[in-house]
Amino acid sequence: MLNVGIIGASGYAGEELIDILLSHPQARINYLAAKIDMSQPITKIFPRFKERTALICNNEIDLKEVCTKCDLVFLALPHTVSMEFAPKLLAAGKKVIDLSADYRLKDVSLYEKFYGVKHKDKARIKEAIYGLPEIYRNRIKPAKLIANPGCYPTVSLLALAPLLAFNLIEPESIIIDAKSGTTGAGRKAALEFFFSEINEDLRAYKVNAHQHMPEINQELSFLAGKKIAVTFVPHLLPVNRGILATIYAKKSNKVPPKIGETSPAKLAGTKSQSHKLLDIYKKFYKDELFVRVKEEKEFPNLKDVRGTNFCDIGIHDDKDKIIVIACIDNLLKGASGQAVQNMNIMYNFPEYTALL
Amino acid sequence: MLNVGIIGASGYAGEELIDILLSHPQARINYLAAKIDMSQPITKIFPRFKERTALICNNEIDLKEVCTKCDLVFLALPHTVSMEFAPKLLAAGKKVIDLSADYRLKDVSLYEKFYGVKHKDKARIKEAIYGLPEIYRNRIKPAKLIANPGCYPTVSLLALAPLLAFNLIEPESIIIDAKSGTTGAGRKAALEFFFSEINEDLRAYKVNAHQHMPEINQELSFLAGKKIAVTFVPHLLPVNRGILATIYAKKSNKVPPKIGETSPAKLAGTKSQSHKLLDIYKKFYKDELFVRVKEEKEFPNLKDVRGTNFCDIGIHDDKDKIIVIACIDNLLKGASGQAVQNMNIMYNFPEYTALL
Amino acid sequence: MLNVGIIGASGYAGEELIDILLSHPQARINYLAAKIDMSQPITKIFPRFKERTALICNNEIDLKEVCTKCDLVFLALPHTVSMEFAPKLLAAGKKVIDLSADYRLKDVSLYEKFYGVKHKDKARIKEAIYGLPEIYRNRIKPAKLIANPGCYPTVSLLALAPLLAFNLIEPESIIIDAKSGTTGAGRKAALEFFFSEINEDLRAYKVNAHQHMPEINQELSFLAGKKIAVTFVPHLLPVNRGILATIYAKKSNKVPPKIGETSPAKLAGTKSQSHKLLDIYKKFYKDELFVRVKEEKEFPNLKDVRGTNFCDIGIHDDKDKIIVIACIDNLLKGASGQAVQNMNIMYNFPEYTALL
Amino acid sequence: MLNVGIIGASGYAGEELIDILLSHPQARINYLAAKIDMSQPITKIFPRFKERTALICNNEIDLKEVCTKCDLVFLALPHTVSMEFAPKLLAAGKKVIDLSADYRLKDVSLYEKFYGVKHKDKARIKEAIYGLPEIYRNRIKPAKLIANPGCYPTVSLLALAPLLAFNLIEPESIIIDAKSGTTGAGRKAALEFFFSEINEDLRAYKVNAHQHMPEINQELSFLAGKKIAVTFVPHLLPVNRGILATIYAKKSNKVPPKIGETSPAKLAGTKSQSHKLLDIYKKFYKDELFVRVKEEKEFPNLKDVRGTNFCDIGIHDDKDKIIVIACIDNLLKGASGQAVQNMNIMYNFPEYTALL
Repeated sequence: MLNVGIIGASGYAGEELIDILLSHPQARINYLAAKIDMSQPITKIFPRFKERTALICNNEIDLKEVCTKCDLVFLALPHTVSMEFAPKLLAAGKKVIDLSADYRLKDVSLYEKFYGVKHKDKARIKEAIYGLPEIYRNRIKPAKLIANPGCYPTVSLLALAPLLAFNLIEPESIIIDAKSGTTGAGRKAALEFFFSEINEDLRAYKVNAHQHMPEINQELSFLAGKKIAVTFVPHLLPVNRGILATIYAKKSNKVPPKIGETSPAKLAGTKSQSHKLLDIYKKFYKDELFVRVKEEKEFPNLKDVRGTNFCDIGIHDDKDKIIVIACIDNLLKGASGQAVQNMNIMYNFPEYTALL
Repeated sequence: MLNVGIIGASGYAGEELIDILLSHPQARINYLAAKIDMSQPITKIFPRFKERTALICNNEIDLKEVCTKCDLVFLALPHTVSMEFAPKLLAAGKKVIDLSADYRLKDVSLYEKFYGVKHKDKARIKEAIYGLPEIYRNRIKPAKLIANPGCYPTVSLLALAPLLAFNLIEPESIIIDAKSGTTGAGRKAALEFFFSEINEDLRAYKVNAHQHMPEINQELSFLAGKKIAVTFVPHLLPVNRGILATIYAKKSNKVPPKIGETSPAKLAGTKSQSHKLLDIYKKFYKDELFVRVKEEKEFPNLKDVRGTNFCDIGIHDDKDKIIVIACIDNLLKGASGQAVQNMNIMYNFPEYTALL
Repeated sequence: MLNVGIIGASGYAGEELIDILLSHPQARINYLAAKIDMSQPITKIFPRFKERTALICNNEIDLKEVCTKCDLVFLALPHTVSMEFAPKLLAAGKKVIDLSADYRLKDVSLYEKFYGVKHKDKARIKEAIYGLPEIYRNRIKPAKLIANPGCYPTVSLLALAPLLAFNLIEPESIIIDAKSGTTGAGRKAALEFFFSEINEDLRAYKVNAHQHMPEINQELSFLAGKKIAVTFVPHLLPVNRGILATIYAKKSNKVPPKIGETSPAKLAGTKSQSHKLLDIYKKFYKDELFVRVKEEKEFPNLKDVRGTNFCDIGIHDDKDKIIVIACIDNLLKGASGQAVQNMNIMYNFPEYTALL
Repeated sequence: MLNVGIIGASGYAGEELIDILLSHPQARINYLAAKIDMSQPITKIFPRFKERTALICNNEIDLKEVCTKCDLVFLALPHTVSMEFAPKLLAAGKKVIDLSADYRLKDVSLYEKFYGVKHKDKARIKEAIYGLPEIYRNRIKPAKLIANPGCYPTVSLLALAPLLAFNLIEPESIIIDAKSGTTGAGRKAALEFFFSEINEDLRAYKVNAHQHMPEINQELSFLAGKKIAVTFVPHLLPVNRGILATIYAKKSNKVPPKIGETSPAKLAGTKSQSHKLLDIYKKFYKDELFVRVKEEKEFPNLKDVRGTNFCDIGIHDDKDKIIVIACIDNLLKGASGQAVQNMNIMYNFPEYTALL
């Protein structure tokens, strides 16, 4: 039985972690902490867990206690707070899955620009493994510190990876028009998130200036083997959870290079490239349980992924452009579900445990 | 042209007052103030008013300026703040319509108990006229200080007035199960009103302890001529605006007394009392434009009153009980619409001006 | 491994049954049918189940196939359709859990009045066991035919059972003001359920005329040992799922009779009756996993039961009245969750299997 | 006083027309008809209009009656139905504002392809004036037959007109990612629009295949003076009303040509083109009351245009791309508001009458 702790248990990501881990047959939550006034049963904060757990959520973090009780710690903390705890936990030999952005960006100057603070643990950034299993599974397995991906990056990267892997689009043409439910903003008191301000509304925000943009650019650049800068416009939806990204890119006219042992030509056989997009996606993700590729002329919608760890992807071939529409539950595949998926990989549990 | 000012212009009630008064042919908004960081065009706070007004909203209240510019001032302030401004405005000869609760409760001890502060202007409480036109129109006309009714009281009183006027129910049996949209809570940053906390949820709150309960009791007692204490359970709905109250009361078996020149017998002719409820309501409200009585087996719903100053009422005769279902837009008939209705009465404008 | 079938798999209750049963370690869905144009993978109807099941949903019901493949059949059919299938399945020795109302009402004349059709299987009505485990667990265990309770009755009965069991209220005073999400209406094309007609709206419907009222009356009468007729006003909420019932009743002044070996006096010790309501509820439900009694001044809300099989109950002692507020997920404890709970009881699986 | 009729009064566009026209001081609704079972007061269909009108809505259209009673007729009918009525009304000397698509597309083959029917009144297509006042005001004034623009085209054209007029973008690069509330689909019984199917969901639909796409292409081509084919992906939002379009286009590097007496150089003075986008928009729309251009880094949102006839536009200069975000109320500026704006122009009423 793996003993885990959750620091930052009172937010939306923390809530989902608790929900998943209470159903996990090989893991046991052994420690909870959050920025709250006083220690209390977690069911005071989330009454929905009553009858499922009697765990206490601590208001102060006793690192010795954490280290005694846990083998693995989830940090579901705001950005800039995780980097205070991660080094100490790692030094004590614990494994850490960090749901914040603190260890995601390899270029510390981008982190400092987009998050507005000095990084306090620069040395460890390059050791952190970006926890997107569909791309980095092999590196996740032995990792000590997982930088769990952001929600927008997760959906964007899964949507674009096959196109970049096979060089099917012009990388500089990528436009990501993303729409997210409000839990993506975290659980906080703010007038702009007052029910009546969000309900019956839709707005774009941080137009081409969102902090997830450099994360998307970094990972797409790794995939493409060259520097990519996307156009990224997030919108705030009047729904609780879910992200849908509608992505536009210009087709490339280059010959797709071989990647590993596979090439798109092989994948797609003799059929014309334009009709073979779906096949390429299906083969690219054929061993990935949590990515579901839709059939032709079918497109994903939020309700089919809500409450699941799936990423659904639909593809439309539009003359000189490719349109990819993808969606996830921002709190699951976009945060806590993916964090547990990473845990399952690290500890050799079946990857889908507690996630189906 | 009547010159009016609005103090507390940045809240939901203030926003609606601006919206209504910008369309009022006989009134002109001449002053706006709110608790904001710096003076700014009101369109910075409410961009929806762009192209309709260039008014500046002040961050500090210059009473001299208010008094120079305005004949009538609307106080759309939080409870306990109005009573600081009303006395000074009245002393300067201005008329005041106060949308807060500060002058509604005649029994100051109830005010102090339910609002948790000492009252600072007790003397003026008894001069204030409770601004429910359908009941107090004649007193509103010459009034200097209007205590504009609360949203729950408005819908409850209009729903119950005919029954109490004609002594048709046992007053101690009244149960008001009310459901309100979130704007009723005011416009404020609070975790409990975060979109994802309210959306897809319903909850009862302040069960039989809401501050509007003594106001309902006071006014019902006036109507009944004896002390009444209702059971009152408000619920928070995941909608922006609107209140629907479902009200239950036991039928009285007393002979209805004459009221003025009318008696239920006269009203209802020879038909049996139980079948004549609708007729009683229709006659009670026959001169009231803003009260609409539904036909038999029809019941009101929020969307038909949303954005209007109407109160819709449906009645069901249930053996020994009467069920009354009534609804209003909490920001209009329950606040700003009624405030303008009161203004129209005070200044002899047609009562519906800017309200249809 | 228990083999089960679901007839009526394309509705909301069917969808939830599939979701639960796919996670059930001791049961396997072996047959699906629904009123659809042609047989097709269930994932065509509910794409959310992709990668979880490859089951085909049949468009015609082949009873021989059902009986070969299944030990137990869930009928998630519209009212009046179940009674065509149940007799044949039972005759073939299969067990049946019927989610419709066809076998709930013992008084067939009430069924025929409220559902508007002749009953075709009257003889079997009295054999059917009303599947509310908290009340009828012992009868459910050996049952062949379960009449799975309606959503409004489930929440109402669980809320009122302790009060009636201990004779704490005047039965004729019960008022149930219930609010339900739209999935309660079933999954169907109807203008009145068009998104824009429901969203931002609230309405009462079937005021004291809802078909669940005789079901509530029947079961409350059994509990009270005398004929009860409640006042019941359902409302349609702009949420997908969940029912919250606010229930009002007058306190009884009778001495509570002994029930089994327990009496309220024993339960509540020496404290005054009025303060002991919570204790009575807690003891009444102390062995019931799926009923959670809130602490004093705490009340349940939809989001804490959404997606769960719990019924949350809060109690308020209001002088001469008792107010009980209870809620459930209408599709789980109010339909499919309770159906699986019944199955678990019938087959000696731990009662919570696949339900936590 | 202008006498107007509305045919198709029972849909969402009809409802809004009634709402606006009841407040119009120079127009009087004199005739209503709709596809309903029997003639009835319009307040039976829309109880919200009670106390505002006693008009009867006819279930059969008596053309003689229409022509006797009305000078102008609004056709708020489904596509393909308008073309049956318009010819007869025009022949009788009446003016017609058609809210359907029947007279919008100049290329009848596109109409027949996208609407799936033969056109029955081809000759009149070229006489119809496309009723977008900001572009075609002079032609609208004397028009007999107005083809009132679709909702998506209205917001898209107003957002793009300045860029095309001044040749600032590469026309073939235009991507329109549009998000619409559900009333855009009309008022109809359909499972896909059942509340629970839309609520908490988001989906793309008719990806690059929506019937409004040829309309957008036609009008953009007129503006650009060359054939344009946009990429157009509409999405269905869980809100009642409003459309927000996020539009992406590549900057042109051509020298902007003179247009009329104005050129962008003149408009923008000596400042660099990229910083002058806002100025260009502001000057392009400086005489247009119903187009509001946001300041730098400000973007429009649905709630600021809901219930109004405004189109709000925000612009972002993104290196080689321009991002334009625009929104309207789909039922007002996108349908009935614009129809009345056209009527006001045709009859020389102040253009904003009944629309502010």
